[in-house]
Amino acid sequence: MVNEPASVTDTVEAVINLVGIFAFALSGALMAVRKRMDIVGMVVLASITALGGGIIRDVLLGDVPPAAFRNTWWLVLPLIATVLTFFLHPVVTRLHRSIQVFDAIGLGVFCASATAKAAQYGVSPLAAVLLGTITGVGGGILRDLLAGEIPSVLRRDTKLYAVPAVAGSIIVAVAHAAGQDGLWVQAFAALFICGFRLAALWRGWGAPAPRVSGPTI
Amino acid sequence: MVNEPASVTDTVEAVINLVGIFAFALSGALMAVRKRMDIVGMVVLASITALGGGIIRDVLLGDVPPAAFRNTWWLVLPLIATVLTFFLHPVVTRLHRSIQVFDAIGLGVFCASATAKAAQYGVSPLAAVLLGTITGVGGGILRDLLAGEIPSVLRRDTKLYAVPAVAGSIIVAVAHAAGQDGLWVQAFAALFICGFRLAALWRGWGAPAPRVSGPTI
Amino acid sequence: MVNEPASVTDTVEAVINLVGIFAFALSGALMAVRKRMDIVGMVVLASITALGGGIIRDVLLGDVPPAAFRNTWWLVLPLIATVLTFFLHPVVTRLHRSIQVFDAIGLGVFCASATAKAAQYGVSPLAAVLLGTITGVGGGILRDLLAGEIPSVLRRDTKLYAVPAVAGSIIVAVAHAAGQDGLWVQAFAALFICGFRLAALWRGWGAPAPRVSGPTI
Repeated sequence: MVNEPASVTDTVEAVINLVGIFAFALSGALMAVRKRMDIVGMVVLASITALGGGIIRDVLLGDVPPAAFRNTWWLVLPLIATVLTFFLHPVVTRLHRSIQVFDAIGLGVFCASATAKAAQYGVSPLAAVLLGTITGVGGGILRDLLAGEIPSVLRRDTKLYAVPAVAGSIIVAVAHAAGQDGLWVQAFAALFICGFRLAALWRGWGAPAPRVSGPTI
Repeated sequence: MVNEPASVTDTVEAVINLVGIFAFALSGALMAVRKRMDIVGMVVLASITALGGGIIRDVLLGDVPPAAFRNTWWLVLPLIATVLTFFLHPVVTRLHRSIQVFDAIGLGVFCASATAKAAQYGVSPLAAVLLGTITGVGGGILRDLLAGEIPSVLRRDTKLYAVPAVAGSIIVAVAHAAGQDGLWVQAFAALFICGFRLAALWRGWGAPAPRVSGPTI
Repeated sequence: MVNEPASVTDTVEAVINLVGIFAFALSGALMAVRKRMDIVGMVVLASITALGGGIIRDVLLGDVPPAAFRNTWWLVLPLIATVLTFFLHPVVTRLHRSIQVFDAIGLGVFCASATAKAAQYGVSPLAAVLLGTITGVGGGILRDLLAGEIPSVLRRDTKLYAVPAVAGSIIVAVAHAAGQDGLWVQAFAALFICGFRLAALWRGWGAPAPRVSGPTI
């Protein structure tokens, strides 16, 4: 969460963050198109998907106003994603697979950096993992709720999404507990989450579900 | 957001705020009736619609407990709106057009005063506009979510609602950036939002929507 | 909300809190099974149901990170409830009535202790009652929203749930205003809420609903 990049690593982190925000914003804007919303709905869904998870994290940590309100680019990117999607949504839709890759990058970056931030705020490792995961998946949950759908991350037919988030967040939390706070830990965890998510997507890995019989209620 | 009015302008602002809260509360209570809820659902929807936007704003600005919890009248008005709607909902429904006028007043007052409050908290103009808009439309979004509907502000068939809110919030934010913080700026912006919204309603102005083909998904 | 029990009453309070959390978590996990979610959905719904109300309360009072993030057992119990429900959900479902009893205990404990906490934060009695009630019913509302249902507490066919919560919270708030803050007040209010809720369940008491004609919209 960097305002004025002071070094190469800071700049790299800031750029990757923006990639994640943009990917999440595209997925929000596309959902709005699918739901036949107007441009207001597109802006709202793009912004909430991109920024919602981080805002929840900052509110829970007491870091207000949330970082999203202090970074102009974070607020502008969802608007750009909306305009692009407004005019080019058939193209954007065809880029579905590319967006899933960006989304996986965003998931990795958000979970890893949020777990590190939470750990620095002194919460327990378990709570840090929880906050990291919430940050990664929270925006998508809000997007689905506003679109009138059961959040995809909760559904049986979804490929692993929260599980990579949790696994990668555990890496950061354990490293922090062991005194390792370097940015390379976050980078490794983010890559791990991203790779795990993409592998789940391409191999069709799902989470186990309880055996149930009878019709869906 | 005034606790103890000390002057005429304060009193005027407090009264207009109460008008907005009452109008929003009526729309919440009516939604509960339409959804065949009991009186508990009516109280909850009336309160959330009237106070939800301001509570989100205060949580995001770190001004807790939110103002809604510190103003007894703000908590009591939704109860009064519920009782009225409980016994007189056919009358209240027939007053649909009057309620839309009050709702437009509430939207204007909430957006204008919230943008000013956010700007005083030192956030950027863009963030202040965002917070002002959230305050104006947030309560209605929560109302629709709790009623199991896609928020009306996001839907294609809705007349301009968020657009006047954004436009009026920009007026306040720009004036603040130019050193103008007087209550007359808020009053002008609130009137502008209210007039813009009512014009949209009566002229049938909608927001642009992306061209899509094929059936709704 | 006790971290390190120092006396018998503290221990009793902590244990009763855990009973409430566990009961709420079971109801969340069961909802996930009914909705055909996978284990990720079960964990999320169990956690949100058990901890959501308290997290909302702490965010509104400015006590962040919320207590839920500072109590390891509070985070672990929903996981245990999920594992149990995953393998034994037919048994858990058959225990429906027992769970309703535990849920009533949880409702009582959460409302009473939250009202007391809010009153100690200096909010008005009315606001304290509101916060106590939100804490008791908030988790269930989030559970139902994530499951794609209109919150059961708002529905016409629900037996009294929020009304006992409000009534018991009033007891605590009035006692606080009269200078009575002992744990016995909370204990009495919790028992009152629990008994009132169970009586409503077994006697079929519902809240009044406005008379409406015509088809449901």
